[in-house]
Amino acid sequence: MREVRLSLFGFGNVGRAVAEVLIGKEALFREKYGLEFRVVSISDTSGTVWLPEGIDLREALMVKENFGRLSAWTNDYEVYNFTPEEAVREIDAEVVIDVTNDRDAWRWHLAALRDGKGLVTSNKPPLAFHYEELVGEAERRNLPYLFEATVMAGTPVIGILRENLLGDSVKRIKAVLNATTTFVLSRMEQGIDFENAVKQAQELGIAERDPRGDLLGTDAGYKATILHCVAFKPITFDEISVKGIVEVTADEVKRALARGRKIRLVATVEEGNVRVAPEEVEGPLAVSSNENVAVIETDLLGELVIRGAGAGPKETASGVVSDIVKASLALRGG
Amino acid sequence: MREVRLSLFGFGNVGRAVAEVLIGKEALFREKYGLEFRVVSISDTSGTVWLPEGIDLREALMVKENFGRLSAWTNDYEVYNFTPEEAVREIDAEVVIDVTNDRDAWRWHLAALRDGKGLVTSNKPPLAFHYEELVGEAERRNLPYLFEATVMAGTPVIGILRENLLGDSVKRIKAVLNATTTFVLSRMEQGIDFENAVKQAQELGIAERDPRGDLLGTDAGYKATILHCVAFKPITFDEISVKGIVEVTADEVKRALARGRKIRLVATVEEGNVRVAPEEVEGPLAVSSNENVAVIETDLLGELVIRGAGAGPKETASGVVSDIVKASLALRGG
Repeated sequence: MREVRLSLFGFGNVGRAVAEVLIGKEALFREKYGLEFRVVSISDTSGTVWLPEGIDLREALMVKENFGRLSAWTNDYEVYNFTPEEAVREIDAEVVIDVTNDRDAWRWHLAALRDGKGLVTSNKPPLAFHYEELVGEAERRNLPYLFEATVMAGTPVIGILRENLLGDSVKRIKAVLNATTTFVLSRMEQGIDFENAVKQAQELGIAERDPRGDLLGTDAGYKATILHCVAFKPITFDEISVKGIVEVTADEVKRALARGRKIRLVATVEEGNVRVAPEEVEGPLAVSSNENVAVIETDLLGELVIRGAGAGPKETASGVVSDIVKASLALRGG
Repeated sequence: MREVRLSLFGFGNVGRAVAEVLIGKEALFREKYGLEFRVVSISDTSGTVWLPEGIDLREALMVKENFGRLSAWTNDYEVYNFTPEEAVREIDAEVVIDVTNDRDAWRWHLAALRDGKGLVTSNKPPLAFHYEELVGEAERRNLPYLFEATVMAGTPVIGILRENLLGDSVKRIKAVLNATTTFVLSRMEQGIDFENAVKQAQELGIAERDPRGDLLGTDAGYKATILHCVAFKPITFDEISVKGIVEVTADEVKRALARGRKIRLVATVEEGNVRVAPEEVEGPLAVSSNENVAVIETDLLGELVIRGAGAGPKETASGVVSDIVKASLALRGG
């Protein structure tokens, strides 16, 4: 049995889902992988709870549920006001987990790696802007830097591209990577107008309160950038072309339908060329609901389709937790 | 740069495709993985060509092409009459590759592992009958024993189940794993009768001269057995239920079509329960052509679909070569 100390940054929907999986699958991790996880710190925007002996995750979930913030938990635990970089350096953990939306997290990702810590993240901007630096640092230090959940939630498209198909050369990837735009376009197919479709998505918790990142294609663009980095070579979000769905009209949706097709926000990833734009599609790219899909074209295998959940707390936690196990096994081996 | 000595067993369609990829992608393997492959032996049913300095693969392909057997190659190379077990022991290789159809290959797989060699295989019966023994031996010795190409050719369903989704628990897999039966059933949908559909499959090289292994469900059964071993726990082909497509009538195919459905040979894999039988399907399982598909249902992620080539020499070589790279990197790390 090997105990692995984890430091969790972010305790929103995904962070809490990760905590729930860590609680619920203790026995699985012990029996199948010989791993026992000890969460030594949890940070949310209110502060950092830190206990080297390990935090009671059930209690942490209850505090968050009842008070909305970890800093309310002052009777049992010390709450610290670290910056993330301070927290990463101060807290003795083997694997740092970033499930925040911190756009500047690449700084503390680097700090963690330089401090000899493995890193697991579902946070996209660090990779979409600093892939080369981050993955390079991890490789030089032989540390795990894993990010399955940044693209298509737990659906293992990153795993397939990074750890499989090792003899294939990817020619092109076409993918639908954002569930909110799929939802909005699906509603428009049913005759609901754009504004009301967005409102419904927000009411159902599918779109964020500020849905621009989805509707303008930024979220899909981050993901497409990451796919390019993994399948070909490092690139940044600034180098790609992105067009969202805000200009898609009811008429265009109707005309596509009449041809048996659907409009989806499609990412096209070729070597040195990434673009995200609404396209008329049929076949595997015509997904509905919260599914994402990637069609990977390679020289030996031809066309490979992977389709699965692209959003949701539990579905994202699936990728994060898989990476936590993978990072822990890699650190054990290394 | 690290040189890896390979010993290739089987020089039929798949073996030759593997050799072609090893020739064509030398630069890729060197640049991307720091690996240089040296094939020190090739065996076909006529004998074993063995050259510790490394065999010229281009020449080997030419000899096979022109003479149909490696043993014709007597002017340049020694040709040995080893049994596979003798060859495995005698020949100094780090990775043994089995792309034969030898039903008893598990014996020399074991011999290779006991001799400290890694093993890569596309040959199904060893795994379908001796999974526990083989994988157990490899794990005890910390040696790679890789078999991506046994199920769905190079489409990485084994990689997904073995190396990803590490926090998910699989509930069920439903899959179409045999391309010949899909071809025959598709032709029947076009009104061609069973016997003629089989004849066409043979003429196109899709079905073997003796197509019973496909039509009776044995091939799909082997693959379903292997999926169970990977997703749940070891089981053998003798413990599963298999029904092929020979009793499917033109009428049944027609009635399914009328309901917007198709009959496919479907494998259902649940913990402790594997069955292969013709089923009426719609949605992702209704594949055509040489594609295979697996629908993997898990607790966290929900439904994951992976679809891709399920047959073909190049497509199978994709999985074999990916495993050769993976095995070589694992041996380097270990």
